[in-house]
Order: sequence, then structure tokens, then C-alpha cells
Amino acid sequence: MKQSRLYIPTLKQTPNDAEAISHKLMLRAGYIRPVSTGIYAFLPLAWSVIHKIETIIRREMDNIDAAELRMPILLPAELWEESGRIKTYGEGLFKLEDRHKREFILGPTHEETITTIIKEYLNSYKKLPMVLYQMQNKYRDGDSTKFGLLQSREFLMADAYSFSANLEQLDTMYTQMEQAYRNIFEQLDLDFRVIQGNADLMGGTETKEFSALAKIGSDIIVYSDESDYSANLEMAASKLTGNPVEDNQKSALIETPDVHTIAALASFLKIDETKIMKAVAYMADDKPVLVMIRGDFEVNSFKVKNFLKANFLEVATPQEVVKKFGSTPGFIGPKGLNEDVEVLYDSSLEELTNFAVGPNIRNKHLMNANFEDITDEKPIFHDLRVVKEGEGSPDGYGKIEFTNGIKIASIFKLGTKFSQDFGADFLDEDGKSQPIIMGSYGISISRVLSAVIEQHNDESGIVWPASLAPYQVHVIPIKYSDDVQRRLSDEIVQLLKDENFDVLIDDRNERPGVKFADSDLIGIPIRVTIGKKAADSIVELKIRSTGETIEVNKDELVNSVKILLKNQ
Amino acid sequence: MKQSRLYIPTLKQTPNDAEAISHKLMLRAGYIRPVSTGIYAFLPLAWSVIHKIETIIRREMDNIDAAELRMPILLPAELWEESGRIKTYGEGLFKLEDRHKREFILGPTHEETITTIIKEYLNSYKKLPMVLYQMQNKYRDGDSTKFGLLQSREFLMADAYSFSANLEQLDTMYTQMEQAYRNIFEQLDLDFRVIQGNADLMGGTETKEFSALAKIGSDIIVYSDESDYSANLEMAASKLTGNPVEDNQKSALIETPDVHTIAALASFLKIDETKIMKAVAYMADDKPVLVMIRGDFEVNSFKVKNFLKANFLEVATPQEVVKKFGSTPGFIGPKGLNEDVEVLYDSSLEELTNFAVGPNIRNKHLMNANFEDITDEKPIFHDLRVVKEGEGSPDGYGKIEFTNGIKIASIFKLGTKFSQDFGADFLDEDGKSQPIIMGSYGISISRVLSAVIEQHNDESGIVWPASLAPYQVHVIPIKYSDDVQRRLSDEIVQLLKDENFDVLIDDRNERPGVKFADSDLIGIPIRVTIGKKAADSIVELKIRSTGETIEVNKDELVNSVKILLKNQ
Repeated sequence: MKQSRLYIPTLKQTPNDAEAISHKLMLRAGYIRPVSTGIYAFLPLAWSVIHKIETIIRREMDNIDAAELRMPILLPAELWEESGRIKTYGEGLFKLEDRHKREFILGPTHEETITTIIKEYLNSYKKLPMVLYQMQNKYRDGDSTKFGLLQSREFLMADAYSFSANLEQLDTMYTQMEQAYRNIFEQLDLDFRVIQGNADLMGGTETKEFSALAKIGSDIIVYSDESDYSANLEMAASKLTGNPVEDNQKSALIETPDVHTIAALASFLKIDETKIMKAVAYMADDKPVLVMIRGDFEVNSFKVKNFLKANFLEVATPQEVVKKFGSTPGFIGPKGLNEDVEVLYDSSLEELTNFAVGPNIRNKHLMNANFEDITDEKPIFHDLRVVKEGEGSPDGYGKIEFTNGIKIASIFKLGTKFSQDFGADFLDEDGKSQPIIMGSYGISISRVLSAVIEQHNDESGIVWPASLAPYQVHVIPIKYSDDVQRRLSDEIVQLLKDENFDVLIDDRNERPGVKFADSDLIGIPIRVTIGKKAADSIVELKIRSTGETIEVNKDELVNSVKILLKNQ
Repeated sequence: MKQSRLYIPTLKQTPNDAEAISHKLMLRAGYIRPVSTGIYAFLPLAWSVIHKIETIIRREMDNIDAAELRMPILLPAELWEESGRIKTYGEGLFKLEDRHKREFILGPTHEETITTIIKEYLNSYKKLPMVLYQMQNKYRDGDSTKFGLLQSREFLMADAYSFSANLEQLDTMYTQMEQAYRNIFEQLDLDFRVIQGNADLMGGTETKEFSALAKIGSDIIVYSDESDYSANLEMAASKLTGNPVEDNQKSALIETPDVHTIAALASFLKIDETKIMKAVAYMADDKPVLVMIRGDFEVNSFKVKNFLKANFLEVATPQEVVKKFGSTPGFIGPKGLNEDVEVLYDSSLEELTNFAVGPNIRNKHLMNANFEDITDEKPIFHDLRVVKEGEGSPDGYGKIEFTNGIKIASIFKLGTKFSQDFGADFLDEDGKSQPIIMGSYGISISRVLSAVIEQHNDESGIVWPASLAPYQVHVIPIKYSDDVQRRLSDEIVQLLKDENFDVLIDDRNERPGVKFADSDLIGIPIRVTIGKKAADSIVELKIRSTGETIEVNKDELVNSVKILLKNQ
């Protein structure tokens, strides 16, 4: 391709409003342009990369017999009324009316649509399993649009849906899809983790998230420094070292005036925070729930919500603490509450002795308390806390660390939520009608593009992996108007094209410095510079990632490029 | 691909509400499903065909150095306010608001968007020319959605935009694009015509439409039976045989009471309609215009509007005939009208002698009139009429015929309308600022899909050209559960895949009759049936288009398929 015919509006300055490296570089290197807030045009270089990502995805989907189709973007709102998601998505949905005042939405995902399409025909176990996928624009009217393609309102997704007759089939589809996604991201040269996600959010049974490591990423990935354990912060568990064994002392109620935080209480009582039993009061779907946890930990509200299978969970207001719990704010504890309060104990409290705890009396705490002082029942412990760096990995191997990641994909055992909503039933082997068991899978192509750039760049610009570069070889004649240089350049382009390389030739009438800077910025793996030695058929090869250069003769060029690209 | 893993919901019955053959067949053969009125899901077979169409388009665009990009679908309404098209498109636009109440539209075409994108960088003649294109969903909220993909509200387009520094460059781009489109449609095996369109509608200078011949098509194509002249009905011209030469007679005013039509006048006066000068009164942007035409022709209002460069043109009401023209309805003629009435003469009147014409007097006509009786000036003739079948082609070769077509593409010399609206200027060689000269080009991929099916089908279903078939070869084991048949089938699939054929294998547990009927319906060019002779490695090849069958040995299979596909 001739560079003069590609639209590549490179910028000398970094745009002011871009924060993420990938966003800055895509603007500077002429890959994208905003058309509205959070809405971008993919210029030719970006589109070429996306085309390569799509080709890799398509190949992996083919390998597991998934079939590609294309659903509409403009979806009747009634489908989303039916599933109830018109409410849960709320303002995040783009909504519109047609000329007949019928309501539509712009699809952010397609579970509803695919279920209504397949239910016509997938009516027997004989026709299952099946996996269908598509690649298309999706829409979410998000409230934050700061990080370029990482938070765009119109974005590209590859979304897949599986349909199974039983749980074994679902497991097989889910496992195949996970492996396909791993293969895809490895080919894209991404450093990523597959982490356990929160399946309850969508009423499913299991979910995994694929997260590309990147400082700018808003996901916190929890992982073991020794094993392959990893999870998102919502779901991460940990192994405690355990509380020290001590003889039980006798408890005493003491005055603790004006002590409003755990830190203040520890300091006032001159004890460690690990010796305090902290209480957090919640209203869970109108039911009062008190979560007890060791003073040095925080309650993980996702875990509480999942444990209670609650739809809504909010921290109780001071008024609610008084009225619904029968306590006094700041001094709440398990003993003596209203009868309908459910008390939960986090596993950080297991074998804790001689601790401080709220007595439900204003300006007092119970010191040196033990479980028999606060409950008549044998306490049951649950994992309800936010894990901390340095704790043990739950699998017993290594310590827990945190890192940031960009969520690029997820896989989801969806169950029968949508097949039940839309009556997508099949007859099983015994002739019994059953809802189809579904899985849902998605890769955010827009985010993948950003994530690869976050991981592959230097001070001069983007450094593409060879599998993904918009062009693999950049041919740069120092002076294209020079006959000798032009003839050699054109010959080299043809030689490379004959070997199926994607070649870009800088045929512009620009200074060499401008050409080189643009080349580094857009990040093509191999540069072939044709200059004064063109008369002797000698050109310079430069490797973008290392900066190394070698001189080669025209005749060795193709082979050299092959070897260099293989080693990228 | 395994047929059991593709979603192909074939129907035994033709859906009641489908009128176009292509619509019926795409529904029956499981290619598409409606998700809402005029909004369709492309199921795997259709998506595979579309993918092939896109690949052909992409290759031809590559050949002329056009670069692919992808603009958003969700566009800020202010762009369309700026160009004024928010009004001209009116109800045909899908409009919506985001969570901040900013107005958006769903793009039906992208002239506004591309112009705002390129104006940042295409600021010098050195950077021109350039052609950019994309393939994506487009949106038009049309009032008719009868013919399936021919009138869908969400449809696929390949739209291209050219940017030139001068008219020569524009001509070159326009010619290259026309040739590229011709190449594309020839590869798609379409019987199509390139016809002259009405450029004034968009304020451009020249446009051509590509129309695929089909009875269901709503376009009327006018063409010569001997030359390659063709145009749409709005634009078509013709060559008249000329009016008979006669000696001028003396005119006479006669009574013609209750004569209200040309036919009635001819019958009353016992003359031919060709001897009547008919008048049609128009209001053109509030200006009275009288068009004179020979009695056997109709006025072509598009031609009148283009000639006058009017924004609005309407037939005058009886009140306006009295008031604005100073005449009396039914008896209007050129002589004695209000002074500001413009009188136009169609070229059918050239050398007409001794005709009947309205005298602007109630219940009277002027008989045996000649031009000196009705005007003091030498009349100028213009082409203002609707052509008729059987007239001479305007190039002098052959006679004019009519046929129906589906408009599948158009190319357009746009000029500077959008570059002026959005300030897309460049510095020319003399350092002078000029607006970029644009061209606009589009293929409706959804319609192409329909048009190919309209032209390639029989009573059993679709008959795909080999270049476009979702799969080229359909391998059908009579009984896939039979070991010998399965082994041979799998071996044949592998042999064909190794030669890069797209192969579908019917691995379903269905009766042979069902498999054969489905195969004919979905229209795959070559069928390979594997039955009882599998033990001897003998299979049957069947050609979908001719119904011919031959038996071949496994070893000859690949070669036979190659030859058969080449001859499709």
C-alpha cells in the first residue's frame, strides 16, 4: 500500500485530554479520531489491526465448530422488557423510537435476541449443542469516557452464545471457549490472566474474566506469586495465618467515649486492630444483617450479597441501626440485637480470643471478650472479606499480590435465565420439555486493541507484535523521486508482496526525519530504508523493537525479513 | 463445517408475507430471520455469502489504492444540522438522545462525518487524491419494508469517498470506481446495467446507478436494444423521428365545449394526438412556468426541475392557473399569459405545424396553429419529456426499451457541497485555498445479496454462483452413522479442505430426502453423495445448476470438483 493513499494524520504533540498511553498513541499515530464523546472513527491503520484481530478470532472459533452470524444492532425494546434488563441497564442503554413510535434500543449484548432466534429450531436434544458468534458494534452509554477505546460508548465485540442439552455439554463448550480465548490472546502477544469472576451478578453459575495486565487498567487482579491462582478483587479468597492461641480472659465492659473508628479504638485501648471484632450493619433487601469481621479487614459487599443471594445490599443508615437493629451507631455488636437481625461471621474471626467488641451500649466496649460472651450458638464462619496483599493464596501456594488489568473478555455459564424468559425449550431423550442451557462469551475487540498498545510501546511510539501490525514491513526510500531509489523500492515491495507480506511504502515527498519518526510512531516491526547505496542494491533493515540495524543486499532481503519477523 | 453445528432453520412452507422471490428463499432456506419490521438477523449461511461479497469488494478497492476505515454508526445530529440534511432526510432518519440529552442519529450515509475527519489533515494538494471506504450497517427508517432485504431499515453498505484537488483527479477517481464496481458485479455473476442517474438531486454534476435486472425491482431502466445506452426513467432521453413537414395553414379559433382531455380533444377535432400542443402549468419555487409538449407525450418533472434548478416543483392548482398565469383551466396556451410566466417548449414540438393549442379562452381551442400564431420569439426547445418504449435511442443506435431493476450501487460526482459546509479546504499549487472536490460511492451489500438470489434460483431453491456460495461443496453421506460411509465422507472433506474448498458436511441424522431437499434449497453448487458404493470408494457428484450427476472414484474427486466449479 502507498502511504500517500492512506489517511494517517500523525501529530507531533500528545493531545492534552488523553490519559491512557494507548489512547495518546492511537491519537498521535493517526489510528483513531473522536467523532463525539466516547465515539471514535477507526482510521485505516487501526482498522487494519482490527481486521487481523478478527481473523485470529474467526480461525479459533472455526476450530471449535462455532458458526458466525450477524444479529441486528437496532433491537426492539420489548425483548429487553421481557428479560427485565431494560431496568437493570437503565441509563446505560441508548434508547430510541422509530417513525411509528415503536421503542428500540441499541444492543449492548445479544442474549435476548439470540434466544428468540434459536428457539424456533433448536427444539430437540438432537440439534444440540451449538455455538453461534458474531463480531459487531455494541453500545453502552457509560458515565465515564476517559480512556479512549477502553471506555468507548460504541465499541467492537466478538460475542458468542452456546446452547446445550445438559450440564456436561455446557462444561465442554465453556472449556473449549476458554481455550479458544487463551489461544487468541497468546497469538495477540498479550500478557493476560484468567481470573475467577462473580457469576451471581447475572444469575449464572460460573464466570471467568480475561484481564490484560496494564497499569491503567481499572480491574484489580489478585494472584498468587507461586501458583496460577487468580481472581478479581470481588471474588478473591485468601488463606489466613490464623489467630494466636491464648487462654480466655474475663471480659469487662469499659467506657470508650468519642471513639468512632477502629484505629481510634485500638489506640485508646492500646491493643492491635487484629484484637478488635468490627461490625458492619447492612440492609439486604429490607432485612437487617450484621457482618462481623476482624478489625484489620474490610467487608467485601459482593461476597455478602452473593452469600445472602440478595438483590440489593446497602450499608445501614444510623436511623436503621437504631430502628431495625435495636442498637446505637458506633457501638454495635452481636449480642442483644432485635431478634430478626442475621449475624454473619467472617472467617478472619476463627479462633479469635480476648477481643474488643461493641456491646450495643453508647460509649462503651466489651474488652477481652470471647465468643461465649456474645453468642449462645456455635458461630459459623464464612469468607466475607476483601483480601489483602501478602496474605496466603487460598490454594496454599505462595502469597497474594495485586496488579491492575484491563478486562478484555469473559466467559459465562448462563444457565436457563434467558431460555426460560423466552420459552426456548427442547425435548430431551425421554421426550421431556426442558429449557436450553446457555453460555455467553465475549471479547471486547476495542479494548484488546488498546491493551496490546498499553503493553507494546516505547518513547517513540507503538511497537506492534508481528501478528498484529497493520503492515509487517515499512519500505522507506530516502528520496522516492530519485530514479534509482524508486526502482529499487518498487522492486523490493513486489518481492515482499510475492511472499505475502503486508507492505507499506512511504512514497511521500517528506524529509527522511519525518518519515522515520512517523514509522517509529505507527510501529511497524521491520523498516527497510533505501538510500544512497541503492545503486549497489544495498538497503538497511531496522528492527522496531530493538533498534538494531543491518545492511543487506536485495537478494538476501526476503530471507532476512522472514527470519526477523519469526523472531519478533 | 459440520451442518449439525450451523444454524440453518429451513422451512417447508413459503412464508405468507414474503413477496420477492429472494425474500421468500432467504426465509425458507434459513438465511435470514426478521427481528423487527425491516430489521433482519443474517444467519450463518447468509453471513458467509456476505463475507465473500465483502472480500471481493475489498480486493477491488485495494487494486485502486482505496484505504478501508470504519466510521461510527452513532453520529452527532449537529453534523446533519450543518449540512441541512437533517431536514431533507426528515422522518427517514433514526434519531435519539444520549444520557446527557445530546442528539444523535444513526448514520444512513457518511459524507458529513468523513469530511470532518479528513479536513484536519488533507490540507495540501500534495496529499490529494485519496479514496477512503468502509463496510458497515446503515440506517433508514423507510415507510415501506415489503421486500425483505431490498427495503430493510438496517442494511449493509460499502461506501467510499474520494477527495481530489481538481476536476481531472475527480474524473480519474470516478472512472476507477466505476470500473471497480463493474469488476465486482461481474465477479458476483450479476446481470446489471450502468445507467445515467439524476445528479441534481444531491447538487452534484454527474451520477451513475448500477441496477441489477429483476422483475421485482422498483427502478425502471431505459436502454437501447442495439447500443449500450441506458438511463433511469427520470433521466432517459430519446431521439424523435421528427414531425411531418407540411405547408402552414391558416389558424382558426373554434368552440370545444366540455373537452377536458387530450384524448377527448383529438377525438372531437378528429386529429391525431401528435397534432396537439399540450400545456402543463407548474409552480416552480413560487414562479409560474408553462411547459408545452406534444399531445402524445408526458412531461418529465425531474427534467423540468433540473432545467429550472428549482428546489420545489408542483403542478399548478386551478386557482393558480387563473391567478398566477392569467388563464382558464383546461384551455391554457402560451399566448396572452401574465408577463412573468416562463414558457418552455419540449423538443417534441420542433417543426410541428398546423396544431391545436389552448387560446386561454374558456371552451375554445386554436386549430391549425403554427408557432408564429402563439409567440413572437423564435422558440427554443429543451428535452423535458418522459421517454417511451419504441422511440429511438438518443445515441442514434437502436430503439428504446424498458426493464425493471434493483438499484444496487451508485457513483456520484459530489463537487464541493460538503467540503464547503464543513470548511474542508486545501492549498493548491499556487498556495490558494480551495474546497476539496469530493466524490461519493456506495454499494448496498444487502441488496446485492437479494439481487443475486433474484437472478439465481429455480423451483427447488437458490442456485449460487460458485464465487459466492456459502460453501462450494456439500458432502452428504446417506447414513453418517454407517462406519464405511462416515470414514469415506470424512476423508473426502479433508481432501477438499486441503485444496482450499469451502466444504459443508451434512452429519445430521436425517432421511436422505430431507438432506437432498435442504441441499437444493440452500443452493450449494456441487453435491457429493456418499452411499452404498462407499465400500468401493465411489461417490456421486451432482451439479446444482443443471441437475446432472456423475459417479466418480475418490481419487478423481478433487479434480472433478475443480473442473465443475470452473465451469459454473
